Amino acid sequence: MEAAFVAVGSELLGTQRLDTNSLLITDLLRRHGVRLRRKAVVGDDEEELCREMQGLLGRFPLVLVTGGLGPTADDVTRQAVARACGRELVEDAAVLADVEGKFRALGRAMPEVNRRQAQVLVGSRVLANPRGTAPGLCLEQGGTTLFLLPGVSRELEGLLRHQVEPWLEDRGDGQGIESGVVKVACLPESVVEERVAPAYAEIGRERISLLASPGEVRVEVTARGDADQRRVELDRLLARIEVLVGEAAYGRGDETTLEGVVGGLLRERGATVATGESCTGGLVAQRLTEIPGSSELFVGSVVAYSDPAKERLLRVPAEELSRHGAVSEPVARSLATGARQVLGADWGIGITGIAGPGGGTEEKPVGTVHLALAGPDEAQTHRHIRLPGDRRQVRWLASQVALEMLRRELLGSGRQR
Amino acid sequence: MEAAFVAVGSELLGTQRLDTNSLLITDLLRRHGVRLRRKAVVGDDEEELCREMQGLLGRFPLVLVTGGLGPTADDVTRQAVARACGRELVEDAAVLADVEGKFRALGRAMPEVNRRQAQVLVGSRVLANPRGTAPGLCLEQGGTTLFLLPGVSRELEGLLRHQVEPWLEDRGDGQGIESGVVKVACLPESVVEERVAPAYAEIGRERISLLASPGEVRVEVTARGDADQRRVELDRLLARIEVLVGEAAYGRGDETTLEGVVGGLLRERGATVATGESCTGGLVAQRLTEIPGSSELFVGSVVAYSDPAKERLLRVPAEELSRHGAVSEPVARSLATGARQVLGADWGIGITGIAGPGGGTEEKPVGTVHLALAGPDEAQTHRHIRLPGDRRQVRWLASQVALEMLRRELLGSGRQR
Repeated sequence: MEAAFVAVGSELLGTQRLDTNSLLITDLLRRHGVRLRRKAVVGDDEEELCREMQGLLGRFPLVLVTGGLGPTADDVTRQAVARACGRELVEDAAVLADVEGKFRALGRAMPEVNRRQAQVLVGSRVLANPRGTAPGLCLEQGGTTLFLLPGVSRELEGLLRHQVEPWLEDRGDGQGIESGVVKVACLPESVVEERVAPAYAEIGRERISLLASPGEVRVEVTARGDADQRRVELDRLLARIEVLVGEAAYGRGDETTLEGVVGGLLRERGATVATGESCTGGLVAQRLTEIPGSSELFVGSVVAYSDPAKERLLRVPAEELSRHGAVSEPVARSLATGARQVLGADWGIGITGIAGPGGGTEEKPVGTVHLALAGPDEAQTHRHIRLPGDRRQVRWLASQVALEMLRRELLGSGRQR
Repeated sequence: MEAAFVAVGSELLGTQRLDTNSLLITDLLRRHGVRLRRKAVVGDDEEELCREMQGLLGRFPLVLVTGGLGPTADDVTRQAVARACGRELVEDAAVLADVEGKFRALGRAMPEVNRRQAQVLVGSRVLANPRGTAPGLCLEQGGTTLFLLPGVSRELEGLLRHQVEPWLEDRGDGQGIESGVVKVACLPESVVEERVAPAYAEIGRERISLLASPGEVRVEVTARGDADQRRVELDRLLARIEVLVGEAAYGRGDETTLEGVVGGLLRERGATVATGESCTGGLVAQRLTEIPGSSELFVGSVVAYSDPAKERLLRVPAEELSRHGAVSEPVARSLATGARQVLGADWGIGITGIAGPGGGTEEKPVGTVHLALAGPDEAQTHRHIRLPGDRRQVRWLASQVALEMLRRELLGSGRQR
């Protein structure tokens, strides 16, 4: 089955906002094997919307429209669709009673403008919208099933789940497409691609896609079939990708974060961590404390931007600072050990570097970062890296490498001692 | 003048990506008084794109299309537009030489597939694209000026600036619309709306729009006229909004950040700051160190999650912790003073609170935060607030309030002593 989508709202034609409802709709349609073939945005513009609808009705078996169902004069979806379908709008007594009831529940009388929201197209089915005032509408017109849905995402989500999805379930054969994701830290996209390449032959290149963002690659695989088949198949594919990528694959699903995985490993081992950060300005601490309940595993952090702060708070020897400079291996190691000891944690992370834009030298250009990890057995890991990008990206990448170093150590496979 | 926009690319019909090119285009069009009336996304789908173009050509004086100009078989924009216009595609020798030259400059031979990129519509003008291989094309068809532009944003930006904008300048009367923004910290949207209400009558409600995000409200005003008139008018409007909003208006323009403004004030005064943070996990430090050159004004931070860390590193008296609890006014004050003294800064920020989801009690529910500011004259500001939202939002709002407290103090107008 093929579908078309239209988002209505002049704010979606401005410079600040994009239609995001279509992402919700695309995901739902894919899971039910429906292909979205086009989407359009039109303003609160009866003429243009009517024309758009005339072009879609009869051409696609399924058309979804969001927005323009509000109570004010610039909400024109009902009128435009009525014109495009050659149907009348009539006031529906039950809908009116429902809208009035919603205002009454808030202790208010219904403003007269909201009466518009009780208008329905002749022959349409009213779709209850408990999260808002305007109901959705569903109608058949020239071989097209047309859904008119609210533009507010929270209301739309409810209607998609309780009205559109059941319709798709009834219509379809249960076959659909679903995606799963493996997330990979601190490997270049080209390396990830090389590693997953065998899977191209095994399951088809078009079913695997890579998306890189700084310090991370997302490997997405898709499975077809009914819901059960898809679950089994996705599981198999994700496991295969994980094997191919190796240990750098840190988790599944878009909700999974590197800090969340590190937090989970610390919790499992009953271990705690502290950080001594310079160039990252506390970003590692920040990320670790984003995890709910992080007080059990994160003790604290010292962000020491100045040399005296490094000496006084983290016991970095003055002699190290003067001989090697603040951005150096010995100082990174001292920051890690200092954080661990001063804050009383099992693990200490030390980071010092030059995030830029200023401060770079020929010997230590912008992007130079030293990272160290001090562990319970006093063994230390150190890495010296050159990171690309602007200040924000250098800091982000440094935090990513630090978390990945700790993750590897916790898995018992730190590489460089 | 009215315009329509089409983004081409199957990836824009998936669940992960949205067309963002239209934002660049909308901004440019507005500045030249052109109204974008509709936008559409179609896949790499010759049939559908041809149909879309047929619906637009002759109906809008200006149509812009991005994407689908690449070298592979799924790049169909040239073919689809040729069909819609009834024109032929021919290989252009100059374009071919240019594409070949670009590969040669990289020390490579041009792959045969790239020959497609040298195809141009008969009667079209070739638009040089120095940032990529495929040139843009411009043609007149049935009263429509049609621009075919690359989908890669960096390439698109270059062509908009050097090809589309000069065309708009030639065509238009110089009249356009431009927006300016005043950013407001830590005031509810309803309060900001109340304050700017007089401007609705003065300059028209439709020219002012408010957009709220956690801890911040953006007031956007628009000016019409030629470039000079707009600049003068925008300046006047922004100044008026700033007067109406009062001191909570911290800056102009979307690039302006609260931390940037605070950093600027510190720099002007030659002052430094340090933070002692608990629930925010170093977010204030993080934000302050995002400013380039922040090492001159930011000394460091102690993130003390545990009570012993608060005692040892920031000299919070054990007796305060046991008598009042870690989330309390005295502890916030001690964190601020401790950070200031231990790290040796002019200003100290102390934050302690319950970010959630766990840890709340009846007396101190999730969202309870105590903030304190210790200054050079030892005077202290304190605020006790209840913040709404989830963990991430509570932390963000707390950092926002802390920075705003410091900003007000630096302006010499801290309210609560």
